[in-house]
Amino acid sequence: MTPNLLGDTYRDYIACLNQQDWAKLDYFVDHEVIHNGQPIGLRGYLEMLQGNYREIPDLLFKIELLICDPPRVASRLRFDCAPRGEFLGVAVNGRRVSFAENVFYEFAEAKIVRVWSVIDKAAIEAQLAG
Amino acid sequence: MTPNLLGDTYRDYIACLNQQDWAKLDYFVDHEVIHNGQPIGLRGYLEMLQGNYREIPDLLFKIELLICDPPRVASRLRFDCAPRGEFLGVAVNGRRVSFAENVFYEFAEAKIVRVWSVIDKAAIEAQLAG
Repeated sequence: MTPNLLGDTYRDYIACLNQQDWAKLDYFVDHEVIHNGQPIGLRGYLEMLQGNYREIPDLLFKIELLICDPPRVASRLRFDCAPRGEFLGVAVNGRRVSFAENVFYEFAEAKIVRVWSVIDKAAIEAQLAG
Repeated sequence: MTPNLLGDTYRDYIACLNQQDWAKLDYFVDHEVIHNGQPIGLRGYLEMLQGNYREIPDLLFKIELLICDPPRVASRLRFDCAPRGEFLGVAVNGRRVSFAENVFYEFAEAKIVRVWSVIDKAAIEAQLAG
């Protein structure tokens, strides 16, 4: 895959998440996907995403930076949302917060096989303390 | 710059940090560098790094993943170290922890002009709680 095609595939994946079009998820995510070292598979990946939407009803993925170097993609995602209760162990309780996720993906045959994600928990804590 | 050349420059930058060769830092970092939205400049950048080494005497930067798409680089850095006291607001107090930093850089004329960094604070907390 060329960098441009990989970037297009990634943008389509993010659109799929924002539409919560779960029937299409296996078009983008491999059945054997590993997330932060855990072999959660497509089913675990779907459960994670559905859990995110339950905890954060107004969740929206916005790509801030995209770096493509096949077979890998790095993306900085921006979230402006109001998690209902605890999020990452922080008692957000419906307050509005803005935070980033810096996340790396490895693709194989146009599907995500590995994810390395870090969410900016310190930024969330700083906003709630402020 | 080609992706390969940018990758080489980045690896040289990390070697410079690991050698604490501060006289060379301005070879890699622009005088007007912006770090996580803060225009800290080369002097602020140097002070940040020197502060890191004071807080974490055995600090070592190890590149786990490197994604180059000029003028941008994304890197997953791995740290295995023992911060002396508090680190990111966590009372580590000399215990050994392993954590990642997912970080993006923008280069201009072979120097770093912007950095977007997220450190995996939740992983540190999980290790200390375990």
